[in-house]
Amino acid sequence: MPVARTETVDALARGLREGDRRALARAISHVEDGTPLARPLLAALYPQAGRAHLIGVTGAPGTGKSTLVNGLALAYRRRGLTVGIVAVDPTSPFTGGALLGDRVRMRDLAGDPGIFIRSMATRGSLGGLAQATADVVIVLDAAGFERILIETVGVGQSEVEIASTAHTTIVVEAPGLGDEVQAIKAGVLEIADIFAVNKADREGADRTVTALKMMLGQGVPDKYHIMHHGRLLPVTLPPLEPASASWVPPIHKTIATQNQGIAELLDSIEAHRLYLEQSGTRQWRDRLRAASELRMILRDVLLARVLDRTPVEQLDRLVGAVAERRLDPYTAARQLLDSTAV
Amino acid sequence: MPVARTETVDALARGLREGDRRALARAISHVEDGTPLARPLLAALYPQAGRAHLIGVTGAPGTGKSTLVNGLALAYRRRGLTVGIVAVDPTSPFTGGALLGDRVRMRDLAGDPGIFIRSMATRGSLGGLAQATADVVIVLDAAGFERILIETVGVGQSEVEIASTAHTTIVVEAPGLGDEVQAIKAGVLEIADIFAVNKADREGADRTVTALKMMLGQGVPDKYHIMHHGRLLPVTLPPLEPASASWVPPIHKTIATQNQGIAELLDSIEAHRLYLEQSGTRQWRDRLRAASELRMILRDVLLARVLDRTPVEQLDRLVGAVAERRLDPYTAARQLLDSTAV
Repeated sequence: MPVARTETVDALARGLREGDRRALARAISHVEDGTPLARPLLAALYPQAGRAHLIGVTGAPGTGKSTLVNGLALAYRRRGLTVGIVAVDPTSPFTGGALLGDRVRMRDLAGDPGIFIRSMATRGSLGGLAQATADVVIVLDAAGFERILIETVGVGQSEVEIASTAHTTIVVEAPGLGDEVQAIKAGVLEIADIFAVNKADREGADRTVTALKMMLGQGVPDKYHIMHHGRLLPVTLPPLEPASASWVPPIHKTIATQNQGIAELLDSIEAHRLYLEQSGTRQWRDRLRAASELRMILRDVLLARVLDRTPVEQLDRLVGAVAERRLDPYTAARQLLDSTAV
Repeated sequence: MPVARTETVDALARGLREGDRRALARAISHVEDGTPLARPLLAALYPQAGRAHLIGVTGAPGTGKSTLVNGLALAYRRRGLTVGIVAVDPTSPFTGGALLGDRVRMRDLAGDPGIFIRSMATRGSLGGLAQATADVVIVLDAAGFERILIETVGVGQSEVEIASTAHTTIVVEAPGLGDEVQAIKAGVLEIADIFAVNKADREGADRTVTALKMMLGQGVPDKYHIMHHGRLLPVTLPPLEPASASWVPPIHKTIATQNQGIAELLDSIEAHRLYLEQSGTRQWRDRLRAASELRMILRDVLLARVLDRTPVEQLDRLVGAVAERRLDPYTAARQLLDSTAV
C-alpha cells in the first residue's frame, strides 16, 4: 500500500524535509482541506518552521502585483534562494484570473524545483482564509523555502490582514488607476514597510511617488498599534530597541513587465529583513504572529468542542428561536454555554 | 445628568422605537465600539428587528455600485419606504473614498429623516467586519427602517460573505473594466439573486449581458450549498417549496448616474422579496442567518471566557514558547484549554 504509507504525519514530515515535492503538495492539500491529518501534521511541522522570511505583497487590482511577485521570485532564484509563493488574490494569474501574457510569464517559474506556487481558494476554508493561509505558510516554511511571497488583493479586510502579518509588507501602487481605486489606499498605506510604484513608465508615476512621500512626511500611525489594537491576545512584548522607530518605508519605482527596479526592490526587502533582526523587531513580530495563530486556533477548537457536546435537537431549537426572534443570539449563546458547562 | 440618563439600554431602545436619530447614532456607536452596553443593547433590540428586507449590493471597484445604491435609496423614498444604508466598501463615497460628483449626489440623501447612512470602518472591530456589520443591521432593523442596503466591495472574502447573507443579493458588473477586474467575477457570480450591468451606455455592455446569460444557462452552483458548506452550525432546515428552484436571476442594464434602469431594478428586488416569502425561502434564509450569528457570537464569547480565566503570565509563557517554536500553537491551545477546564 504505497499510497497509504505516505499518508502518515511522520512520512509526510520526512518527505518535506527531504525535498519531496509530492509530499509537499499532499501536505498542503491536507491542511487546506482540513482533513483529520491537518492538525497533527501542522503540530509536527511547526518546530521545523520559522526560518523563512515572509513577504506580503498587496495592492489594488490592476497594479500589476502578480508580475512583480513573479519578478521577485526569479530575482531571488538568481541569488540562489528558494522561494514559495502563496497567492490569495482572485485577480492573480496564479489563482486563475489570468491574462495570456501573465500565463506566459508564469512559465518562467515552472519546472524549477526551487520554487513552489500555491493559490488559495477564496472561500470554503473551515477556519477562514487568514488561518488557511497561515497554515500553508507553515508548511512551506517547514519545507525549507527561504523566502515566501504572499500575494493578496489590497481591498478586502482579511486579505489586507494576511499581507500585513508578514515580516515585510510591500504595498504596490500604480499611477492612473482612477480615483475609485486610489481611495483603497487609505486603509492600506499604514501597513507598508516598502512601497512599489509599479507601471512607472505611465504618466503620473512621479505624482504618485510625491503623494506617498508627503503622506510619509506627515507621519503614519504606528502599524502595530493599528493591527493589534484590541484584536489579539493580551501579550507582553519584549521592549523594542530605539532603532525600531528608525525604519522609513522606501519608495521604489518599478516596471515589472520589463524587470526594471526589481533588483532594487529586492535589496530593500533584504535590508528590511536585516533591520528586523538587528533591532529586535523580528522577535516582536514573531510574537504577535504566534499570538494571532493561537487566538485563531483557540476560537475554532472551542467552538468545535461546544458543538460536539450539544445535541443537534437543542441546537436546532435555539437556532429556530433566534430566527423567529423569540430569543436573541446573545442569550441563546449563553444558554448553550451554560448547558454544556463551559 | 441628561447624557448619562440616555445611556441605558432601555432609554436607547425606547429612543430607537420613537425615531430619535440621536439615540440611533448612539446605539450604533456602542455596537461598533463594543462598549459594555453593546451586547445587552443588541439582546434588547433583537426581538424588535427582523422586519426589514436586507439587500446586499456587491461588485468590483469601478462598477459604480455606490451611485446605484444612492439611486435605489432615492427610488425607495419616492415609494414611501424608509431606507438604511450600510457601506462596507473602502472605495465607496459613503465611507470616504469619494469623487466630488459622488459627494454631490450624496447630498440628495442628506436631511431626509427616512434615510440613515452608516459607513463601517474596515478594521478595528473586535469580532471582525462581518459581525460588526450584522450588528449594525440589527440596530437599523430594530429602528424600523424598511429596506436596508448593504454595500460591499466584491473582492475580499469577508466583504462578499457580508453581501451574500442579505435576503436579496445584487451583483453589479460594468463593461470594460479590463480582464484583471473581470476575473473577480468568478467567485461572486454564484451569490447573485439579481444582476445589474451598470454603465450600460459603455461599449461592451451587451457582451457583458450575453456572458452573464450564458453562465446562467450553464447552471450556477447552489448558493446555499456554497455559502454554508461546512461553515455553519449544523442546523436542520425547513423543507423548501418546489418554487424555490424557480428563481432565475434577472439581468438589468442600468446607468446609475442618469437614473436609468433603477426603477426596474427596484421592481426586481421587490419581486424577489415576494418570491422569498411565498416560497418559504425567506424563513430558510433567516434560519441560516440566525445560525451564522449564533456561531460568530459563540466563538467570541468562548474565547473571551477562556482568556478571562487564564493568568496573563501563563498566556505570555505559551505565546513565547510558540513564537520561539518550542511549542506548536495546536498543542498550546490544548494546554490552555485543559488548564482552564473547558
